[in-house]
Amino acid sequence: MPKKLVSLGTMALDSVETPFGRVDDALGGSGTYFSMAASFFTQPAIVSVIGEDFPEEHLDFLKDRGIDTEGVEVACGKTFHWEGSYEYDMNEAKTLKTDLNVLASFDPKIPESYKGCEFLFLANIDPEIQLDVLKKVKPTVCLADTMNFWIDSKKESLTKVFEAVDGIIINETEARDYCGTPNLIKAGLELASISDGKVIIKKGEHGALLFADEDVFAMPAYPTTKVLDPTGAGDSFAGGTIGYLAGLSSTETPDLKRAIAYGTAIASHVVEGFSLSGISERSREEIEERYQLLRKVVAFDHTL
Amino acid sequence: MPKKLVSLGTMALDSVETPFGRVDDALGGSGTYFSMAASFFTQPAIVSVIGEDFPEEHLDFLKDRGIDTEGVEVACGKTFHWEGSYEYDMNEAKTLKTDLNVLASFDPKIPESYKGCEFLFLANIDPEIQLDVLKKVKPTVCLADTMNFWIDSKKESLTKVFEAVDGIIINETEARDYCGTPNLIKAGLELASISDGKVIIKKGEHGALLFADEDVFAMPAYPTTKVLDPTGAGDSFAGGTIGYLAGLSSTETPDLKRAIAYGTAIASHVVEGFSLSGISERSREEIEERYQLLRKVVAFDHTL
Repeated sequence: MPKKLVSLGTMALDSVETPFGRVDDALGGSGTYFSMAASFFTQPAIVSVIGEDFPEEHLDFLKDRGIDTEGVEVACGKTFHWEGSYEYDMNEAKTLKTDLNVLASFDPKIPESYKGCEFLFLANIDPEIQLDVLKKVKPTVCLADTMNFWIDSKKESLTKVFEAVDGIIINETEARDYCGTPNLIKAGLELASISDGKVIIKKGEHGALLFADEDVFAMPAYPTTKVLDPTGAGDSFAGGTIGYLAGLSSTETPDLKRAIAYGTAIASHVVEGFSLSGISERSREEIEERYQLLRKVVAFDHTL
Repeated sequence: MPKKLVSLGTMALDSVETPFGRVDDALGGSGTYFSMAASFFTQPAIVSVIGEDFPEEHLDFLKDRGIDTEGVEVACGKTFHWEGSYEYDMNEAKTLKTDLNVLASFDPKIPESYKGCEFLFLANIDPEIQLDVLKKVKPTVCLADTMNFWIDSKKESLTKVFEAVDGIIINETEARDYCGTPNLIKAGLELASISDGKVIIKKGEHGALLFADEDVFAMPAYPTTKVLDPTGAGDSFAGGTIGYLAGLSSTETPDLKRAIAYGTAIASHVVEGFSLSGISERSREEIEERYQLLRKVVAFDHTL
């Protein structure tokens, strides 16, 4: 049986400060947030690297969620460590320190059992590594994220990634920068044309846009008043979205729209706590409640 | 018969430059944009002031749209003139010059026939003038806008306005500033509690939020790739929204949600041209088309 969902991403120990508190060496990383979110709907597998200092309890925590960690390499040295802070407006993280550590020489090893999986998600990482993993895994469907650093430094390789995948999930600043236009609708349509696939633009507190089948779809953020720590919101959104699709084994646009609502619901729980505390105790029913509320939040002339 | 809808706002001659072109001494002002947008649904009346230089053709243009200009005073001097420019991101206007001219000594005169109207909209102006006009007009329903200048300089009077009206329509920066929180959901709920009414927060390219009956409702912007001049988008949105309600004589929340979609559709036409050229030639059917597309843009698990 091929795996339902594999992701390539980071596993990190984060130190984060916001106006509402601080954590040190807390479990983080794009792969972690993505897989935790996806685990509401499927049993995700993760390709990543950690150092010898990575606490055993964190690995156990992920395994208890049904996350397959066979693809997590334990390398000599220390785990990737990110230190950041959010100020008053909570919209943008200020990176105080990035210790790549074992990530600096990361050469992803793909377990045989991961190859030929249904869905592959390539979180933000060097686009050359993304391409390499895509070639090795040969999934049925592949989606990718990126960040401004790669748009500035390796745009050509990144374009190859975008051309090779079936979907792109990036944030609004990256979409504007990559396409060189302030108009997000133009940017989304251009990216959809480059990848000949689906494009999701993440807008934080303003929700997300989907470009698919030449149509535009808009999803607001879930209306929460309790934003304690935005770290991991984007990766959790992606994990909830793709995890829901993988659970259904579907790439149909109507399912993708529902998936985006589930991703939105899960991301809203993530920001309500530091590290993974916002979702670690949440039930599938609590996610469903927010999904149902999102249906009401957008309806203005619809039968519910 | 009481008037359906009266607005207090400015009538201006605008000089605007964007990356896509420039106009000089073009018809503008909050009252103008508001009334033009509302004229798709009702016959709005306007309270404003113009100078002796105001072209007769502009007045004829408004009258031809069914706009009642009895409340437009022609004062000695020149018409209010605003000069501004938009740069690359088109999100914020840079004011280059503000010549208040006849607006400096504006003391609104309310025609007898305007008093006791159903809906009154108080566009951005000194809150003491807003309160004065509200007292004189005694409408059934009143909604108000404002701007940062009054939040900074006359917050106490502005709070009296907010307490006196049935609804507030302001932009996201103003909402955050007035409430002293970066969280728009918190800000909207607080404003709704102050006014004991409905609150609409305008977010430009990210759409709008409605706070009503302790619920939150979200509307995306209409997905247009053609943004030539954002001037008047917010006032047109308000005009379309309140104009639709006035046409129905309704203040019910389900109608208000539909109204916000119509306001959104009209605002999207406004930004597609300079001054009023984006809507002056639009038909009611073209507005309806965009309304129907907005229904699809937000639906993810709804019967259409």
